[in-house]
Amino acid sequence: MHYKHHHPENDPNYKGLTVNEGVESVPAVNPYNRPKRKRRDFSAAGYVEGILKGDISILSQAVTLVESSLQEHQVIAQEVIEKCLPSAGNSVRLGITGVPGAGKSTFIEALGMNLVRAGHKLAVLAIDPSSERSKGSILGDKTRMEELSTAKNAFIRPSPSAGSLGGVARKTRESIVLCEAAGFDTIFVETVGVGQSETAVHSMVDFFLLIQLAGTGDELQGIKRGIMEMADGIAINKCDGSNIDKACVARTQFQNALRLFPPHESGWTPDVVTCSAVENTGITEVWNMVENYVGFVKANHFFEHRRNSQSKYWMYESINEYLKNNFYQNTEIQKLLIKNEKRVLNNEISSFIAAKELLDAYFKS
Amino acid sequence: MHYKHHHPENDPNYKGLTVNEGVESVPAVNPYNRPKRKRRDFSAAGYVEGILKGDISILSQAVTLVESSLQEHQVIAQEVIEKCLPSAGNSVRLGITGVPGAGKSTFIEALGMNLVRAGHKLAVLAIDPSSERSKGSILGDKTRMEELSTAKNAFIRPSPSAGSLGGVARKTRESIVLCEAAGFDTIFVETVGVGQSETAVHSMVDFFLLIQLAGTGDELQGIKRGIMEMADGIAINKCDGSNIDKACVARTQFQNALRLFPPHESGWTPDVVTCSAVENTGITEVWNMVENYVGFVKANHFFEHRRNSQSKYWMYESINEYLKNNFYQNTEIQKLLIKNEKRVLNNEISSFIAAKELLDAYFKS
Repeated sequence: MHYKHHHPENDPNYKGLTVNEGVESVPAVNPYNRPKRKRRDFSAAGYVEGILKGDISILSQAVTLVESSLQEHQVIAQEVIEKCLPSAGNSVRLGITGVPGAGKSTFIEALGMNLVRAGHKLAVLAIDPSSERSKGSILGDKTRMEELSTAKNAFIRPSPSAGSLGGVARKTRESIVLCEAAGFDTIFVETVGVGQSETAVHSMVDFFLLIQLAGTGDELQGIKRGIMEMADGIAINKCDGSNIDKACVARTQFQNALRLFPPHESGWTPDVVTCSAVENTGITEVWNMVENYVGFVKANHFFEHRRNSQSKYWMYESINEYLKNNFYQNTEIQKLLIKNEKRVLNNEISSFIAAKELLDAYFKS
Repeated sequence: MHYKHHHPENDPNYKGLTVNEGVESVPAVNPYNRPKRKRRDFSAAGYVEGILKGDISILSQAVTLVESSLQEHQVIAQEVIEKCLPSAGNSVRLGITGVPGAGKSTFIEALGMNLVRAGHKLAVLAIDPSSERSKGSILGDKTRMEELSTAKNAFIRPSPSAGSLGGVARKTRESIVLCEAAGFDTIFVETVGVGQSETAVHSMVDFFLLIQLAGTGDELQGIKRGIMEMADGIAINKCDGSNIDKACVARTQFQNALRLFPPHESGWTPDVVTCSAVENTGITEVWNMVENYVGFVKANHFFEHRRNSQSKYWMYESINEYLKNNFYQNTEIQKLLIKNEKRVLNNEISSFIAAKELLDAYFKS
């Protein structure tokens, strides 16, 4: 339920802004089982120069720095990001979510190949904290994206493995900056529609695409509440063979459902299209939907507004998460928290008094 | 958009847990333009005794204390609440929302009169911060609830006028405790479906009812995103006269839409019923829906689970809001915030670095 999001226990890994978010992430996130490449040690300027030249191997190393939990790596990484920021932003950022089994991997493979063939430079990132990875983040499994993973103009990078959602989201967001600076004009950010990552992805992309299956309802069980309202568009995948009729019914169902939602702030009305990633049908229509949206929101300036709101969101989000973290990681507070939670549940004190006691203890120490 | 909720600017009045939330609220919230009653000064024990006896006038004065912004009032109020807590909780708490024009007032009048005639003791509270009041909170306007406002077993109290949503929500929640201790077995918490209050109401009631009109879609424009997914049930009001067909169509539309949502944690499937408050038809069916729900969740123990989660939610929410407030009210921070927001929007620094600078400044001082 929504209030659970406020409950720190929901995110046991949560570490806010801490830079010690776990192990060095190169081996952990390397899906290709390549031997760990020895990194030439560039200066920040060296990385920036390589990135702006579009050198994929240097970009890849810079992203590794961004994902690194080592203090000295973070110092360089932040300087690289700062120097890349002016050259970033010139891309379409597409968020892609859907439950495991919706066919995200084949969809990304199909749409991605269409785009690189059309001359686009595509970076595919992911944003599932390790805790969620097992639930089906495709990027750990290159075998499902054979063509794209070897395509010249595609840069595929799995989710940073270590740390909390907040930490992973930040790293993914900073990787977007580096990819854009390296000339990638299209960014996919993939996530599994089962966790709390959707809000994070929605807050770093221009268009949030929900991949659905024929909506008998059952398929939705795994989808987090509220995701449908976040979607700028829905693609009903696996519209092939004996599934076609079911998919078309689902399309109408979802369209009717979306009509009952309040309109998006952008003025855009989310559309529902059917497609088959395996047969590569309808994929172009999905992309047309994205391009129509981008044209629409660039014309009414919502595109820029959303990007700015997102930048501000991440600043405030970082602050708020750190403030909470600093409080809830306090060992004295943790003891009192357990005590007061009991007293509240036993109706001994009101929630407000329980909170006040904890705050007094925190600000005294 | 969802991320705006994280943005402190969304709630300029926001004052977290501060007890100085504005003016003494008796005159402000007195909708009946009665002359301000001179309050006998009870001890906490005196208030508690009167409340437990079911003395409405003492209850009313205690609620006024709860709503008061004066430190000395708050001290007594908190003691009264603490002493009432063991006698509280024995009620059905019904949250009622819907856009202005949905007919909440006539609905509450109709359902409320049914309940008091059936021997229930009904307290009707509201939770719209002053900023939202004008948008149609019914309780400021007794003329729309003539019968109920004079009924013997009904206690009607408008929304606390002063302060932030957080402050108002707390006062309403604490008033629920006093009303329950005074023997009210049914509590309505009314809000206007236009603001951020719905999450707050949803987090203090057992059943969250959304009052809708025939869903051509237009009526939904005013409803905040996400409210439909919060609803435990929907009542389509004004199902009378030439409206009946439209209302029945709407009923089917909403039922289909709700089927597309993921299931509630409670295992309950939200239902949609049509009613006419003015003709007093379907009102019983709405109440039956609530009673069926209560029976269902008491059987599977979700009722208790939700109440406990809510108590914890309000403790954590109070803490988190205060932590934010303490940060964002800091004048030095406010200056740096403006500066860093600009730098972020100009791509001079990343959101993360901007946040880090602010946090360093805050914890240094």
